[in-house]
Amino acid sequence: MNEIKIFCPATIANISCGFDVLGVALDTIGDEMVVRKTQEKGIRITKLNGQQLPMETHLNVAGVAGLALLAVSDYDGGFDIEIYKKIKAGSGIGSSAASSTGAVWAMNELLGKPFSTLELVKFAMEGERLASGVAHADNVAPALFGGFTLVRSYTPLDVIPIPSPAALYATVIHPQIEVKTSDSRKILKTTISLEDGIKQWGNLGGLVAGLFTSDYALIGRSLEDHIVEPIRSILIPGFDAIKTTAMSKGALGCGISGSGPSIFAFSKGEQTAQKVGTGMKDVYKKIGIDFDVHISKINTSGIKRL
Amino acid sequence: MNEIKIFCPATIANISCGFDVLGVALDTIGDEMVVRKTQEKGIRITKLNGQQLPMETHLNVAGVAGLALLAVSDYDGGFDIEIYKKIKAGSGIGSSAASSTGAVWAMNELLGKPFSTLELVKFAMEGERLASGVAHADNVAPALFGGFTLVRSYTPLDVIPIPSPAALYATVIHPQIEVKTSDSRKILKTTISLEDGIKQWGNLGGLVAGLFTSDYALIGRSLEDHIVEPIRSILIPGFDAIKTTAMSKGALGCGISGSGPSIFAFSKGEQTAQKVGTGMKDVYKKIGIDFDVHISKINTSGIKRL
Repeated sequence: MNEIKIFCPATIANISCGFDVLGVALDTIGDEMVVRKTQEKGIRITKLNGQQLPMETHLNVAGVAGLALLAVSDYDGGFDIEIYKKIKAGSGIGSSAASSTGAVWAMNELLGKPFSTLELVKFAMEGERLASGVAHADNVAPALFGGFTLVRSYTPLDVIPIPSPAALYATVIHPQIEVKTSDSRKILKTTISLEDGIKQWGNLGGLVAGLFTSDYALIGRSLEDHIVEPIRSILIPGFDAIKTTAMSKGALGCGISGSGPSIFAFSKGEQTAQKVGTGMKDVYKKIGIDFDVHISKINTSGIKRL
Repeated sequence: MNEIKIFCPATIANISCGFDVLGVALDTIGDEMVVRKTQEKGIRITKLNGQQLPMETHLNVAGVAGLALLAVSDYDGGFDIEIYKKIKAGSGIGSSAASSTGAVWAMNELLGKPFSTLELVKFAMEGERLASGVAHADNVAPALFGGFTLVRSYTPLDVIPIPSPAALYATVIHPQIEVKTSDSRKILKTTISLEDGIKQWGNLGGLVAGLFTSDYALIGRSLEDHIVEPIRSILIPGFDAIKTTAMSKGALGCGISGSGPSIFAFSKGEQTAQKVGTGMKDVYKKIGIDFDVHISKINTSGIKRL
């Protein structure tokens, strides 16, 4: 096999009480990529459709992630990469992670799978370092493992796949405004109250238990964030109205996707997820903000061949 | 049935990364109680063996917890309670919780189980309020539910039972020193760094996942506490040596039980738990501190009839 065409899922990171540790992969939104073995060494981004992003290998997240893999591989050829972006850059649903993970996953397939999924996470994190200055795994881990993933530790890297109930759906609304990741990081406080911390780890424990037992009500009760959401939501116009609407339409919980501006809600069943989406749309229509809405089942397998 | 004799398990609360939310019940250490229906209204502590504790109903945790139940019951008689303490007061393994929960569990049995386990937790919390000034559920929840329990929230009270792997054993060493709960609470800081918070909820998520999947290695990796243990361990002589020894003997993890002074370790298998106990003993023998050691399987059913 010399060429592979793949789907790279969008992902939600910073899931409410799971700030900086819990992410999930989506099923109906993602990029496509074509990766091809070449005799010429190195990596070239030969096509980049759908978004204005750098095509120079060292400035492209897929390029940089791929180079990290190549650096420890004994393969003496190279790769051409075509990227068909459907996830908007800066939307907060793992646009850079989709490209980084797609590149290394496809390369690994074409080389006969010499690397483990955890190793691929590490390579893809180099793409995240380029995109945001921080080599985080919040989005690349779920994109590669599928489903929910908990990044328990970075030293050493410890990624724990968490199961997801069959009827769990995500609704994501992306208001077409720009929130700089650096801004949304800057406004976070470096200390929190012990009291809020206790609530947060209680909720995270409840959320993980709810995901293991398919207890939708428990998942809903646990989707609380007393620490980051109250601060970051200020940067997202209409956040409170969107959340109130989502909950009134039957969502289990609602929060900021990644560092925003996208907002996600989880629901039991597609029908509720659709209702939540319609309610969210109405809020932004009234305010007069353009948006995209995505409804998706949880993607439990991660990147897939097309 | 007019009389019941029961076993009330000791419990470990504040399990490392689960500070204030995660507790577990033990199997081989606990109190015994006899509870008897009487025509006379109210509650009387008619016997209290093994510890010097108040016998006046309003000053005894079992009495106060029982009164909380009676206050909402339509039963128009009363109860006599005999308490045979085997758990030392102030040891940090839920001495007061054993008495509080035992009283309300036995009364509920004798009345034909009008109350749910969660309601019993609420009654027993009144005993904890008397004992420590705070109506916490860290110990009473695992004593009543058995196994591991996560207290996700107090408003409203939300207790999540978490499964425990079959070969999980606890070793508990109780150095015969006094640490006042008020002191061990006073030295805690009211704020923590966001960075430590993230580690803590990552670990709690990992621990819950490890308990669900019987992944002993993950349980071990997750038994970390960067927040409370570094502060409270200062009050427990030899803590670092005990922990180092426990880990070197094969324990999965080791931490402070409750607010101390007892120290717990978890191990896979009874043999390892015994080795850990022997190692811990040797440390306190060298230092010249008296101690009790308990080795116990996890108690998965909570209080039981004898």
